[in-house]
Amino acid sequence: MKTYNEYLDLVNKAIAAIPYPDQPSQLYEPIAYTMSLGGKRLRPVLALMACEALGGDIYSALMPAIGLELFHNFTLLHDDVMDRADVRRGKPTVHRRWNDNVAILSGDAMLTMATQYVSRCEPCHLPAVMELFNRTAMEIYEGQQWDMDFEYRHDVSVDEYVDMIRLKTSVLLGCACRLGAIIANASSKDADAIYDMGVNLGLAFQLQDDALDVWGDPTTFGKEIGGDIMNNKKTFLLINAIQKANGDDALELRRWINDPEAPRDSKVKAVTALYERLGLRELSDQAITKYNNLALESLSRIGMNEEAREAFTALITGLTSRKS
Amino acid sequence: MKTYNEYLDLVNKAIAAIPYPDQPSQLYEPIAYTMSLGGKRLRPVLALMACEALGGDIYSALMPAIGLELFHNFTLLHDDVMDRADVRRGKPTVHRRWNDNVAILSGDAMLTMATQYVSRCEPCHLPAVMELFNRTAMEIYEGQQWDMDFEYRHDVSVDEYVDMIRLKTSVLLGCACRLGAIIANASSKDADAIYDMGVNLGLAFQLQDDALDVWGDPTTFGKEIGGDIMNNKKTFLLINAIQKANGDDALELRRWINDPEAPRDSKVKAVTALYERLGLRELSDQAITKYNNLALESLSRIGMNEEAREAFTALITGLTSRKS
Repeated sequence: MKTYNEYLDLVNKAIAAIPYPDQPSQLYEPIAYTMSLGGKRLRPVLALMACEALGGDIYSALMPAIGLELFHNFTLLHDDVMDRADVRRGKPTVHRRWNDNVAILSGDAMLTMATQYVSRCEPCHLPAVMELFNRTAMEIYEGQQWDMDFEYRHDVSVDEYVDMIRLKTSVLLGCACRLGAIIANASSKDADAIYDMGVNLGLAFQLQDDALDVWGDPTTFGKEIGGDIMNNKKTFLLINAIQKANGDDALELRRWINDPEAPRDSKVKAVTALYERLGLRELSDQAITKYNNLALESLSRIGMNEEAREAFTALITGLTSRKS
Repeated sequence: MKTYNEYLDLVNKAIAAIPYPDQPSQLYEPIAYTMSLGGKRLRPVLALMACEALGGDIYSALMPAIGLELFHNFTLLHDDVMDRADVRRGKPTVHRRWNDNVAILSGDAMLTMATQYVSRCEPCHLPAVMELFNRTAMEIYEGQQWDMDFEYRHDVSVDEYVDMIRLKTSVLLGCACRLGAIIANASSKDADAIYDMGVNLGLAFQLQDDALDVWGDPTTFGKEIGGDIMNNKKTFLLINAIQKANGDDALELRRWINDPEAPRDSKVKAVTALYERLGLRELSDQAITKYNNLALESLSRIGMNEEAREAFTALITGLTSRKS
């Protein structure tokens, strides 16, 4: 097994080597731009790690792994149009730098490019790989639709929220793991277990993301603290707060949610204090630990050598206690 | 071989049988709505005809053929967002009936559904089918981008226009034909020739579409005459008119193009008269005949029985002399 940074390096080199036609430039430049903005490259790294851990050749998994990163970035590109987000990874989003039409069409092209890269596996694996990838993509659109539906609902339950992030975020991590397993010719038992590991890791990862928006260190988080609070985003924390707040707390929370003019500093500080009074920091930590443990439990069911198991253990522990 | 309406019936039954999950409804209802609006279903019919003509089993081509229709309708759905079109096949477009976000996301889901259906072929054909489908999709996005780029250019040449419609419209007809050929295990010579036939048919078809917008019979055309003229759409006719008009004709054309307040009746009547003075009706007919003949020439190179050859001949002749 290699270190995370060694897998990352392989992935980044392959991404930098993606050839883009020169013309039409408004179709391809936004794709190259999006792919150049970096990121953890978690999905392709997971695919390579899963492939290697299960005895496969990581180079046979590299192009499909890049396809997952193209897909992930396509979803961010279109989500940013839908959410009217201006900034992604510290840079203007595609619809801001170009325009909505460019973002829609280059996103479409990115989805097809993703499918092309995912297809670049041995023909014997192609049916299973395509089935997995397309099914996962449909689940992710469902998750995004639920996320948008939740904006207009005040009665979202924690279970519904967890189902939503499972679809929107976690299944793609499961898919990355299973993709590596398929290419490594793993047993279906191992493929199922590593898929479960990825999904549980994804749940812990997203809950950690929700917590970092509130309690992250502004110097390492990479974006401004409190973005979710300012947008009244229905996260694990806000949904729990709506359910748990009583009396004055409930009134105060409603006041902040319904005040579009609230100054950022005051609102973020007050809502954070409310979350803390309601014990949500501990509740969030417990939920993260729960999915972290489920990921580790899934890992324990997979047949792999100790070196590989330790690499995954370190990855799971690192991601769910990360600061950025 | 069956009649067009018999293939159409098979296709429409398969489309009506597509299962959609109930939830999230804003994701799936727009797809079902779009697919229910009908149309010629030319792409799946071509795929089935090509498959049968080349000795294949049309039922093995049916799901991939439906995938092409899903793909075609996905492109219309997203194009309508980009073009701010309000009506499609006499009904409100998805972004008008729902909203832009619903149109973007359900379009994305439709593209992935298209890929799922196209993938439903024998595993031995899957690599070639995926390669063909994804390459064609990329070409179509390129065509759409060129089409949007042309809006802001006044120096588009006829050759550039033909290249654009080849990408935006024709390659998908070529792809449908080649898809049928692949599934029929046709020789690569036959697959290439039937692809060329489809592309040339597509060019004749689009040029006919441009002409119908001007000279179509309003009672059979299905949409209002003169839409392209009102939008200053850079069609084969307008591009030729810009190149050929001199003196007073050039001044008049420029005046109509630059007058956003021009009354519909006057503008459509005047520009049509100008097109006729410039001999563009004949030029358009000649171009349609040219691609029609190229399609027939490609057809003559394909090994198929006389019944199949006659069916394709009738289809080509019918489509390029159609009134709607």
